[in-house]
Amino acid sequence: MPQYKAPMADFQFLLNDWLKIDQHYQTLGAEGMDSELVSEILNQGAKFAEDVIAPLNREGDEHGCKLADGKVTTPEGFAQAYQDYIANGWNAMLGNPDFDGQDLPYSAAVPVHEMLNSANLSWRLTTMLTESAVLAVDKHASDELRQQYLAKLISGEWTGTMNLTEPQAGTDLSLLNTKAELNGDGSYTVTGNKIYITGGDHDWTSNIIHLVLARLPDAPKGVKGISLFLVPKFLLNDAGEPGEANLLSVGSIEKKMGIKASPTCVMNYDGAKGWLVGEENNGLACMFTMMNDARFQVGMQGLGTSEASYQGALTYARERLQSRSPDGPKQPDAKADSIMHQPDVRKMLLTQKAFTEGCRALSMLYAQQMDVEKYADGEQKAKAKQVIAFLTPICKGFMTDIATEVTNIGIQVFGGHGYIREWGMEQLARDTRIAQLYEGTNGIQAADLIGRKLTRDGGKMLAATIELLSTRIDAMSDAKLQSQARDLLNEYNEVSNGILGASASDVAGAATDYMHYSAYVILGILWLDMASCAQNASNSFIAQGKQKTCAFYIKRLLPRKDVHKSVIHSAADDLLAVNDQEFDYV
Amino acid sequence: MPQYKAPMADFQFLLNDWLKIDQHYQTLGAEGMDSELVSEILNQGAKFAEDVIAPLNREGDEHGCKLADGKVTTPEGFAQAYQDYIANGWNAMLGNPDFDGQDLPYSAAVPVHEMLNSANLSWRLTTMLTESAVLAVDKHASDELRQQYLAKLISGEWTGTMNLTEPQAGTDLSLLNTKAELNGDGSYTVTGNKIYITGGDHDWTSNIIHLVLARLPDAPKGVKGISLFLVPKFLLNDAGEPGEANLLSVGSIEKKMGIKASPTCVMNYDGAKGWLVGEENNGLACMFTMMNDARFQVGMQGLGTSEASYQGALTYARERLQSRSPDGPKQPDAKADSIMHQPDVRKMLLTQKAFTEGCRALSMLYAQQMDVEKYADGEQKAKAKQVIAFLTPICKGFMTDIATEVTNIGIQVFGGHGYIREWGMEQLARDTRIAQLYEGTNGIQAADLIGRKLTRDGGKMLAATIELLSTRIDAMSDAKLQSQARDLLNEYNEVSNGILGASASDVAGAATDYMHYSAYVILGILWLDMASCAQNASNSFIAQGKQKTCAFYIKRLLPRKDVHKSVIHSAADDLLAVNDQEFDYV
Repeated sequence: MPQYKAPMADFQFLLNDWLKIDQHYQTLGAEGMDSELVSEILNQGAKFAEDVIAPLNREGDEHGCKLADGKVTTPEGFAQAYQDYIANGWNAMLGNPDFDGQDLPYSAAVPVHEMLNSANLSWRLTTMLTESAVLAVDKHASDELRQQYLAKLISGEWTGTMNLTEPQAGTDLSLLNTKAELNGDGSYTVTGNKIYITGGDHDWTSNIIHLVLARLPDAPKGVKGISLFLVPKFLLNDAGEPGEANLLSVGSIEKKMGIKASPTCVMNYDGAKGWLVGEENNGLACMFTMMNDARFQVGMQGLGTSEASYQGALTYARERLQSRSPDGPKQPDAKADSIMHQPDVRKMLLTQKAFTEGCRALSMLYAQQMDVEKYADGEQKAKAKQVIAFLTPICKGFMTDIATEVTNIGIQVFGGHGYIREWGMEQLARDTRIAQLYEGTNGIQAADLIGRKLTRDGGKMLAATIELLSTRIDAMSDAKLQSQARDLLNEYNEVSNGILGASASDVAGAATDYMHYSAYVILGILWLDMASCAQNASNSFIAQGKQKTCAFYIKRLLPRKDVHKSVIHSAADDLLAVNDQEFDYV
Repeated sequence: MPQYKAPMADFQFLLNDWLKIDQHYQTLGAEGMDSELVSEILNQGAKFAEDVIAPLNREGDEHGCKLADGKVTTPEGFAQAYQDYIANGWNAMLGNPDFDGQDLPYSAAVPVHEMLNSANLSWRLTTMLTESAVLAVDKHASDELRQQYLAKLISGEWTGTMNLTEPQAGTDLSLLNTKAELNGDGSYTVTGNKIYITGGDHDWTSNIIHLVLARLPDAPKGVKGISLFLVPKFLLNDAGEPGEANLLSVGSIEKKMGIKASPTCVMNYDGAKGWLVGEENNGLACMFTMMNDARFQVGMQGLGTSEASYQGALTYARERLQSRSPDGPKQPDAKADSIMHQPDVRKMLLTQKAFTEGCRALSMLYAQQMDVEKYADGEQKAKAKQVIAFLTPICKGFMTDIATEVTNIGIQVFGGHGYIREWGMEQLARDTRIAQLYEGTNGIQAADLIGRKLTRDGGKMLAATIELLSTRIDAMSDAKLQSQARDLLNEYNEVSNGILGASASDVAGAATDYMHYSAYVILGILWLDMASCAQNASNSFIAQGKQKTCAFYIKRLLPRKDVHKSVIHSAADDLLAVNDQEFDYV
């Protein structure tokens, strides 16, 4: 199993050299925040990720979760690690200060989130969903519900879940069957079955707060008839503590490809007591408060596993002695050269590195915009919101698609050993594979980007994103790199605008290509921007490494954009033309 | 679990319409062979694959293999299926008729091999390696060894293994430590540890014949000092039957990402008795007789799993009702349309289909050339041999790389269900992942293609391949498709020749791109060729389906070749420039 070390030098470069985080916090008036505090948070976060949860990752995969007598048990050490996590306040980083949250800017928390994902994705999931649930309860629930639940969700004394999917209703939530009926006391009775509920039960906390999408008896058909309910595992007694068990249970734990140490539950609500969150029939909007956060967080899962795989592959490539370099022995005293000297292996490692560091830059730019949205007002806030909306499906879709490529490269660098479980590399590929599927498949992300984000509100979201990137390009110090970045951005603007007015089918057929095209171009711009910035970096490894990796990205990975570009404006005729029996000739 | 059905219509098209197999057998003088017999073999093979081994696949993955008291047990039903297999003569399809083999042409066996891989890859592996072992024993062993072992390996009464890898020696066999010392009776004493031995032990047969690479005491250093030994699990008694146990044992079974029902063993040879196969210190050549066959067979594993994944995804897409088609309801009486009506889903399915059917065409062209090599003489035979040598790394490398993409698409079409084990889609991705690693990683395949096959013998292997493709293009009836194919081939010839003379490092850095470039171009030519041919096919689904899928491939998949082409002639400087600490800044 590769030993995880948080990539501190890269975080420091991105925060201090690239995003100039001190100036950023000052401009925004983020009280008490500076680079020193962020550094301290990152150092402590790295310690927790490296020393507490990373060592549990491999065994967690082997042992998985167990369901017995209706109760879920997580692997040994997981519950204790969670107690450490909440005791040290990690769960409260982003929480509302009125409910004992730390109210940190996103830019201080995102690096820690990445570390948690790298160290132990299965362990991380339950805390991630709790953070999403906090957002929904804080924003949409009544004051009474907030008083009862919010502080304990923020501290992590209780965890939260998201209950959307049913066997017949995944992408299409209009098909959901779970029912809720109003009781005399203002509560509701919730009845139905939900699947794929992360953290649906576990042995970490004294209560679990389920947020459940259901339909009222007189609700309109389709997604406009869905409401959101808060359904606790244990009903609260007069002291506000968990009392009587609610009428809900775990039907089973799913057997999955990966994230085996995360309990993915089938949940049965058998007349459980719940309370409305937000207004009746407005559940989808409330749910999207959770979902949008979760989508970016899932993108971060792709980044986290990519980093872990890169670290494992790099360590192995340095140590594995096999054959000689093509231009003669490099370690003549050894029986063979390390495989680091093979150009093909270096190409694999640099592909991992260029994608991982590129996605990290994208995630930090996203975090920066989250900060602006949090602290700024007026047009500045509005524009940040637009950028975030535009980048969310790109972060979720691309960072997870590319994680499957990056973690598979990690296996490949190990050769046959990559396929053996004890080395840990195949686990990363299995674990990260879920991220392309949940919180909306990546096909749904692509449809969201091209069908909603690009075209609604008169193209404001694209415009705000272009403006942000343009401002960054303006500030680049290297004229040659700047001109390359400018050309890329101009091309991107033109290609994006060329989509407007296409038919619904053509847009749907181009969606995934547009998402990938967008990501390759944006990462290209960010790489050029980083390379320019790195020329003045005090860390000479960063200064050289960023410039060389940028050159690698531009030469060997960016050209993929053209494959996607070539079909974005073309019709979907070829996709629709194939008749059913022509798929398999029977 | 998707129910496997052999793709008979496509096989019939490829054999009869595309390869004109009757004419092919007549020209070659392949006695007794005609399309009717091949059809019958395929029908029976399909029955076995569909009814006997496919139903064992899912449970095999759950239960895996067990090692207890030094003996390996395979999952329930596996041993019985093997008895059925050998009783019906499947193991003997390609065997030497002097030892009761059926001596069939490769073109009759390859479709059956594909079916076995689709139906149950874990089950298939042991029989595949036995076939490879048969080739080595038949070609290189002494008459005495052949008399003792060959008939029983061909019938399948005993199975065979390949023992190459050691912990410190994978790609680089020069590092192997296993020793062999000559005994007074002409036998050798073999001592050492081997890893990753497929079928190293099992409960199927009364004996297992290990082919083991080892080093003689006075052997030259490096790969020129390796010899091949036949080491049976049980020594033969005077009646030629398994008697005394040899001094070898199974150390452990590896815990792997997939192919869990295939026992991958650590083998300990503790002074085991063995016999030399071929000449002393010529083991590598003998091993390559097995290896080249195994490499193509591993490519076939990629094809088999791709087909199985495509079938599963297609069935699911037809049945899964979710959302509406972007241009309005297609199944207005249902609650939603099937996801077959989503352009993005169709794009995923057509990507699977275009790669799978394209790789199948490549495999059948390879089989046709194996037939020519078997039956023809002189220059014709020599050229077929050259084509086979050139195509082997492409088949192994590309068909397995693409299988990882295709099986991951299969998961994606299923959405969240794709991640759940009971649906069987994630198993296909896990199972096929090994194929990129064993029998030489795909990086080694790429190095073999560009470093040996392209450049040695004055480029004869490339020339023979170009000539074969050119001849096929000449015979195309559709002038427009023909001209596209001709342009592709000309470009390929030019790009390939442009590599000659590059430095060793530059060639090594371009290897994987050249392998992928080669495959995308060759598949493009084969698709154009099939589309032209299909216009006259009697099966109208084939006629239309092949033309439309060709158009899809040319428009949406072939452009990937240009990403690879763009770096083939460029130097590896960017790969070599990154200094060690610039990889991770520490």
